[in-house]
Amino acid sequence: MTEAMVPAGQYTVRLHNLRLVLTEIATAPGSRADLAQRTGLTKATVASLADPFIERGILLEGHPEAAGPGRPSRLLSFHPDGPVAVGVEINVDYTALSLVDLTGRLVSYQRAEVDNRVLSAVEIVATAGRLCRDFLTGTARPLLGVGLGVPGAVGPGGVVVRAPNLPALNADRVGARFAGELPPALATTVLVENEANLGALAWSRAAADVEPNFVYVSGEIGVGAGLMVDGELFRGVHGFAGELGHIVVERDGPQCGCGGRGCVEQYAGQDVLLAAAGSASVEALEAAVLRDDPAALAAVAQAGAALGVGLASLLNVVDLPLVVLGGLYARLYEVITPALQRELRQRALSSGRGGAQLRRSELAGDAAVRGAAGLIVDRALKQPLRLTGFAG
Amino acid sequence: MTEAMVPAGQYTVRLHNLRLVLTEIATAPGSRADLAQRTGLTKATVASLADPFIERGILLEGHPEAAGPGRPSRLLSFHPDGPVAVGVEINVDYTALSLVDLTGRLVSYQRAEVDNRVLSAVEIVATAGRLCRDFLTGTARPLLGVGLGVPGAVGPGGVVVRAPNLPALNADRVGARFAGELPPALATTVLVENEANLGALAWSRAAADVEPNFVYVSGEIGVGAGLMVDGELFRGVHGFAGELGHIVVERDGPQCGCGGRGCVEQYAGQDVLLAAAGSASVEALEAAVLRDDPAALAAVAQAGAALGVGLASLLNVVDLPLVVLGGLYARLYEVITPALQRELRQRALSSGRGGAQLRRSELAGDAAVRGAAGLIVDRALKQPLRLTGFAG
Repeated sequence: MTEAMVPAGQYTVRLHNLRLVLTEIATAPGSRADLAQRTGLTKATVASLADPFIERGILLEGHPEAAGPGRPSRLLSFHPDGPVAVGVEINVDYTALSLVDLTGRLVSYQRAEVDNRVLSAVEIVATAGRLCRDFLTGTARPLLGVGLGVPGAVGPGGVVVRAPNLPALNADRVGARFAGELPPALATTVLVENEANLGALAWSRAAADVEPNFVYVSGEIGVGAGLMVDGELFRGVHGFAGELGHIVVERDGPQCGCGGRGCVEQYAGQDVLLAAAGSASVEALEAAVLRDDPAALAAVAQAGAALGVGLASLLNVVDLPLVVLGGLYARLYEVITPALQRELRQRALSSGRGGAQLRRSELAGDAAVRGAAGLIVDRALKQPLRLTGFAG
Repeated sequence: MTEAMVPAGQYTVRLHNLRLVLTEIATAPGSRADLAQRTGLTKATVASLADPFIERGILLEGHPEAAGPGRPSRLLSFHPDGPVAVGVEINVDYTALSLVDLTGRLVSYQRAEVDNRVLSAVEIVATAGRLCRDFLTGTARPLLGVGLGVPGAVGPGGVVVRAPNLPALNADRVGARFAGELPPALATTVLVENEANLGALAWSRAAADVEPNFVYVSGEIGVGAGLMVDGELFRGVHGFAGELGHIVVERDGPQCGCGGRGCVEQYAGQDVLLAAAGSASVEALEAAVLRDDPAALAAVAQAGAALGVGLASLLNVVDLPLVVLGGLYARLYEVITPALQRELRQRALSSGRGGAQLRRSELAGDAAVRGAAGLIVDRALKQPLRLTGFAG
């Protein structure tokens, strides 16, 4: 049987074209004529696809504007009161929340310091649920669903396979549990993903020049990485790909929470770094660095060197051309990169060929929670008939 | 433009079906009726596709055999005098050669001890060329082309990007150079690939139960790995993916030829292992292990532990479910795996979830050179019109 001999049905073609038009509008609004040109469809097809979405208040047709010669055109854009996606990030020492619209714009954001380490799985999820319900109070816009980020590997079915820094979540069906915390109207599927992977997704969407192959480094209490390969997340068979925090720096080094010794996290994780610098918080460390405090600078350089050793090993496994530093490392970018770069130059085999470029994530702290909502936005744009069904 | 609306041409369909029929015959011979059933094509289509290949002596139609009830059927198989592919492996301390037929069977194999380290790129290739010409003398079968394995990363265009253990080949266009050593009749394109990647390809073809995700570990003087992800080689942007030998075990460990320190190769590479065991050759080490020589056993266990640390870091980056040990490590499998397994269990995050299974490669020494010829066999089966053009 040759696949190419199976004709595409009307339904498939319409769905494909609908995705095309909505994704174009999400990138930049345009008139029917603009969109026809950008997608290669006819103006009539664009109109027939867009009209049901205008009727349901998902797309907005603007006032006529005479931008150039000829008849004035009306811009199609996503409606400012249209549906939004919810992002929730449960991390080791905080919980963050976001609302993101269909264009990927962050509509609102909130972060609460919560020491989830002292809580059970039930308490962690109940606390996040309460924060989420409060966050959504007063939101009049239709909600598309919830993306949930966690500091651990996520396996099939949204189960947390292992969260070394938040072991209460190990083996927990956190997605199903969180759905139980939501009002019935929001009891849609909750999509769960590792926070470093979400950071990678968010960064690839926010970056102006889209590089389809990169490592996104998420530096929090845990150190993780999201691997983007040809524009897709590389997750591994159990969800453990990109566990940068548990690459070995010194095999006989300090005991790690994962059961191993001398892992990257034991040199470059937030807790270790703050202790070495004698700082009580990340803000205190940033202040100490700004006033050139020698202990703070030395601690950051040591963390950078260990992170560089781990990243060199990682690059010698996956050979990606770009490393994006997020979280804590984005905040300390200027002071942490020299030692990190030195290790990469010495140890990464690709360094002789230009190696991997190093960049600071502009998203820093809110990357994962934006990525969490982004999961839902992506699903909506891929399955746009959900949008009309939902709003109709 | 929707891709699904572009109709497939006659030519595309015929090519697709031809690939299907030839690949089925390569897997197991069959009558026209068998092949029609196995491919979903009609018997007439199978016949029209196969006939030109029978005429050109690539396929053989056997004598009628009355295997079951009804009319006797004739088996279609690849002709025993039909075309073969040439594999050449230039490694650090040997050069190996193979002939492989279109079913993937190894027709002949030869290995010559050559210390390529003391030679220039010109000398290395000239020596391999002479060995190859001698190897092919007397071969009456048509030759499809040459696959060439090298102990280094291979970039676009078949350039050796970097060969830490054979630096004479760094930046060398070894494929084009080797083509110049071949008789004009064989001056087809030479395909070049890293030897660990070729081992992975050969193993995946030889394995009875095909697992599409695994790490193939090639243990020679250099230590490398081929990463197979969803049935495709994962090569990285510059060709440096899977450089297991240069994952860090101890950041302040012994200086490595790559410029780094404390890399896997400095603990588990063949030269280091032989020196630690006090053995003059791999054969001597195997003999010492067989007679329970304490120094040999301790040296192998130490190499296994370091290899385990490196593999744990590798698995924490790519999370694959199977590790296949080849080369030196396949020969020492029983004695090297206990220490290796111990490190994996302790350090690989996936170990709590069943982790990665460990297996010994049945191919051991000839994996890479079989894989090299396999590159050419694959190309021939994917572009079968080359076969008729070539033999016609």
